[in-house]
Amino acid sequence: MTTREAIIDAAVLLFNEKGYHATSMRAIAEQVEIEKPSLYHHFNSKEDILLAILEIGMTHLIKELERIVALEIDPISKLRRAIGAHARIIAENPQGAAVFLREDRGLSDSYLREYVLKRDHFESLFRKILIQGIEEGCFRAVDVTIAVQAVLGMVNWMTRWYRPDGRLSAGEIADHFTDLFLTGLFQPSST
Amino acid sequence: MTTREAIIDAAVLLFNEKGYHATSMRAIAEQVEIEKPSLYHHFNSKEDILLAILEIGMTHLIKELERIVALEIDPISKLRRAIGAHARIIAENPQGAAVFLREDRGLSDSYLREYVLKRDHFESLFRKILIQGIEEGCFRAVDVTIAVQAVLGMVNWMTRWYRPDGRLSAGEIADHFTDLFLTGLFQPSST
Repeated sequence: MTTREAIIDAAVLLFNEKGYHATSMRAIAEQVEIEKPSLYHHFNSKEDILLAILEIGMTHLIKELERIVALEIDPISKLRRAIGAHARIIAENPQGAAVFLREDRGLSDSYLREYVLKRDHFESLFRKILIQGIEEGCFRAVDVTIAVQAVLGMVNWMTRWYRPDGRLSAGEIADHFTDLFLTGLFQPSST
Repeated sequence: MTTREAIIDAAVLLFNEKGYHATSMRAIAEQVEIEKPSLYHHFNSKEDILLAILEIGMTHLIKELERIVALEIDPISKLRRAIGAHARIIAENPQGAAVFLREDRGLSDSYLREYVLKRDHFESLFRKILIQGIEEGCFRAVDVTIAVQAVLGMVNWMTRWYRPDGRLSAGEIADHFTDLFLTGLFQPSST
């Protein structure tokens, strides 16, 4: 592990324990067992560290989603893979995902702008899959903005209840989510 | 507004701005423009205030859900009303809902136990609706635990994107959610 990675891991731990605002650069340095000046050699500010944490997950997600969107497969398979990738990335780094869920407001305006651009790009990739499906006639003409927030909410909420040692793996949970999101709860014979 | 309500409003504001751990009782007292001893007359600790904020929304939700579950209507109508009530309660108090989403970890063990009991009861009411629907044959035999977390995630995520002056009202958003959750994305003719 590089020092940079160790700093990020320590910050994820402390931000989750006490919150971003209540964590000092000194506490992060102590957790990594380095001197404060060494910490500032890697990051200019605490906000830089927060942005790095938020961006690592987002960059990883965007890369996966871009790959999936570009595949020559039907929109149903794309949606299945997108939900699977998103659930897996949360499951691989639940602590980092929890910082994403709770501490995004820690960013000041200039940092936030940069981060929001990435987040909007990420959401636009989910939109693309839904729009392709609607255009090709395999998805209903739902409100795409609401449908994207619905699926993101469903998966992001995993950060609050997913346990690595739980009954189902992240892949199994993603399969259930995809099934629910595609097919809904209705028993076909009853409609 | 009572002093107690003013304290809760001030705490919601400050917890959202700076996080629970970075907000002091002094800052809350200053925001309400009362002396610190008066603040302690209403709440024994900052944690008491956090618990009150978390419990107000939860108690309100539980009351609504218990009423809906007890109605003599079909499970589809119950689910529709339950999602509607949940979305409306978030929309009526988005700042309080944001504290719920972000600051639950602020509670120490004894407080957390009390809160988790309430949260489990709330989730069990959603479970009841789904189980009734499966037993009566109008819902598919989905994994109930995952389906409950899916619908809660979908609605709770509103705390991150819902705007009172947005394109859709909370009721309209809830209708879209219910439609997605019941019917899914598939175009029936394509399956």
